[in-house]
Amino acid sequence: MTTYILTKYPLHEELTKKIQRLNPTIKLFSNDNIKKQQIPWNKIEITIGWSQRWQQQLLAKSSALKWVQVGSAGIDHLPLKKFQQKKVLLSNGSGIHAQSISDHLLALLFMQTRGIFKSIQLQQQKSWAPSETPYAYLSDQTILIVGTGQIGQKLAAALNYFSCYPIGINTTGHPAEHFKETYPLTELSHLAAKADFIINILPLTVETNYIYDENFFKAMKKSASFYNVGRGDSVDTSALIRALQTKKIAFAALDVFEEEPLPSIHPLWSVDNLLITPHISGKTPHFQKAFSDIFLTNLKAYLKNQSLQKNAIDLSKGY
Amino acid sequence: MTTYILTKYPLHEELTKKIQRLNPTIKLFSNDNIKKQQIPWNKIEITIGWSQRWQQQLLAKSSALKWVQVGSAGIDHLPLKKFQQKKVLLSNGSGIHAQSISDHLLALLFMQTRGIFKSIQLQQQKSWAPSETPYAYLSDQTILIVGTGQIGQKLAAALNYFSCYPIGINTTGHPAEHFKETYPLTELSHLAAKADFIINILPLTVETNYIYDENFFKAMKKSASFYNVGRGDSVDTSALIRALQTKKIAFAALDVFEEEPLPSIHPLWSVDNLLITPHISGKTPHFQKAFSDIFLTNLKAYLKNQSLQKNAIDLSKGY
Repeated sequence: MTTYILTKYPLHEELTKKIQRLNPTIKLFSNDNIKKQQIPWNKIEITIGWSQRWQQQLLAKSSALKWVQVGSAGIDHLPLKKFQQKKVLLSNGSGIHAQSISDHLLALLFMQTRGIFKSIQLQQQKSWAPSETPYAYLSDQTILIVGTGQIGQKLAAALNYFSCYPIGINTTGHPAEHFKETYPLTELSHLAAKADFIINILPLTVETNYIYDENFFKAMKKSASFYNVGRGDSVDTSALIRALQTKKIAFAALDVFEEEPLPSIHPLWSVDNLLITPHISGKTPHFQKAFSDIFLTNLKAYLKNQSLQKNAIDLSKGY
Repeated sequence: MTTYILTKYPLHEELTKKIQRLNPTIKLFSNDNIKKQQIPWNKIEITIGWSQRWQQQLLAKSSALKWVQVGSAGIDHLPLKKFQQKKVLLSNGSGIHAQSISDHLLALLFMQTRGIFKSIQLQQQKSWAPSETPYAYLSDQTILIVGTGQIGQKLAAALNYFSCYPIGINTTGHPAEHFKETYPLTELSHLAAKADFIINILPLTVETNYIYDENFFKAMKKSASFYNVGRGDSVDTSALIRALQTKKIAFAALDVFEEEPLPSIHPLWSVDNLLITPHISGKTPHFQKAFSDIFLTNLKAYLKNQSLQKNAIDLSKGY
């Protein structure tokens, strides 16, 4: 039987060939190449990526949709409840971005501990003031990583290389590779009071919405910094702005925001002790190669009626 | 016989005690505590640090000076020829700053590969433009490290951890730990043409004065970056400014300069594609603890009339 696959983005020729080689009867439709009316909506069984504009057709009763494979790690933008109702399988790109996001976080950690943020401010003032730049060993810092999945583990491994002692937080407090200690999310504020750096990598779920609120920032040390590369909705942005402006905390670096793109009139742009990056930490070279590994492994299993081998999402949990 | 030691900076109590314990007859004078006329100049045998203001007394014929132990890695500011003539031993603080400078350089490398410099510029314009920020894996970059001593080796080891392929340059091209390949200084321009990042960590000697000149910057790739944490006098600053302003090279990060402090009217302050840090890469926490290890090891040997065990400088070579 022919399997119809709809892809949101054009695929590299190499991936297309590998898919065809797996099963020559597979028909591949790229959303970019053809008009909406030319897509055989009621035959599409698999999608690569997801578009809101597909929802009406692909979540209709008549739809043959069985499996959605996305490239992102975050899935909070997807109609998870509808997938669950329709028993659509979902798998994500978790792990693809781990190296990039870990590198981004290391850049931030080293920039701060080596006084480079302060140097950039001094440079803007054409001011030579070495006595004003801070310096510290990364290994002397208490680093709390909230989210112990593939990104957190990659970062924790690097921090071990630099003789740090990475502490992790996850929902239940289960052990995670490369972390020296792990605690449940209920311990967040308690641990925040001891940390020099608190790094959020958590996905957005009902449990992680606004977990970084006024009370959390109050619990943090005055000298501590907060980084967010997880999801913007995990942070009460107004509370964070107040904490930064009143120097209740020292610094923040945000890559994700409650509202994206961040509007040019947003008050965050005027906060001094803050680095804004425009949701770039996950930008990954050789993306399609890494994505192919996940998708082809899953496709092989799917065609044999086996369960997805890589990054299958438990829709009841949301991760 | 009493040994007189003059120290430029006050020593921690712990180090003072350890010195006295080694030999209770040692007399320790701190330049900060007493007036110049109270220092028994013709009895001083050892100095910790060096001050130009000591030169007249301590390099006089009547002086008992035998050994100068400095904390810095660089020794180009010292009267090396006079030390050599007077057969004064010299040892430096090489290695103390290795972790700090390596961390500083990793900050720069990750900032650039993860698009954080560009993000900072965008933030200043309150502009959300993720498509304008570059991104790359560090492991895909060709990184040329000029100087394969303790700092270079620390950096090369970290780059290996991140699956990079660090290439080193030193005077003779001798192998150095953690480097995949090493070449002599004569190959500099040839190798520069292939590198994405060129990092100068060399000490200043006659051979390294102005080695980064117009021809060198012409040899570099247009997309490549130049970092200097060695010595400012190794760089023809005017040639570098021209290379940056005409986009002959993409970016530079300078921590050391021909003139320090960098005057506020210096043209470097107005260059866009440049990071200026005010000679901070070597700032090191727990400095005196690391310095004590070197000094006490050398002092033990010195008191037994043995040669210095750590970081003895060959004054004929200048390193």
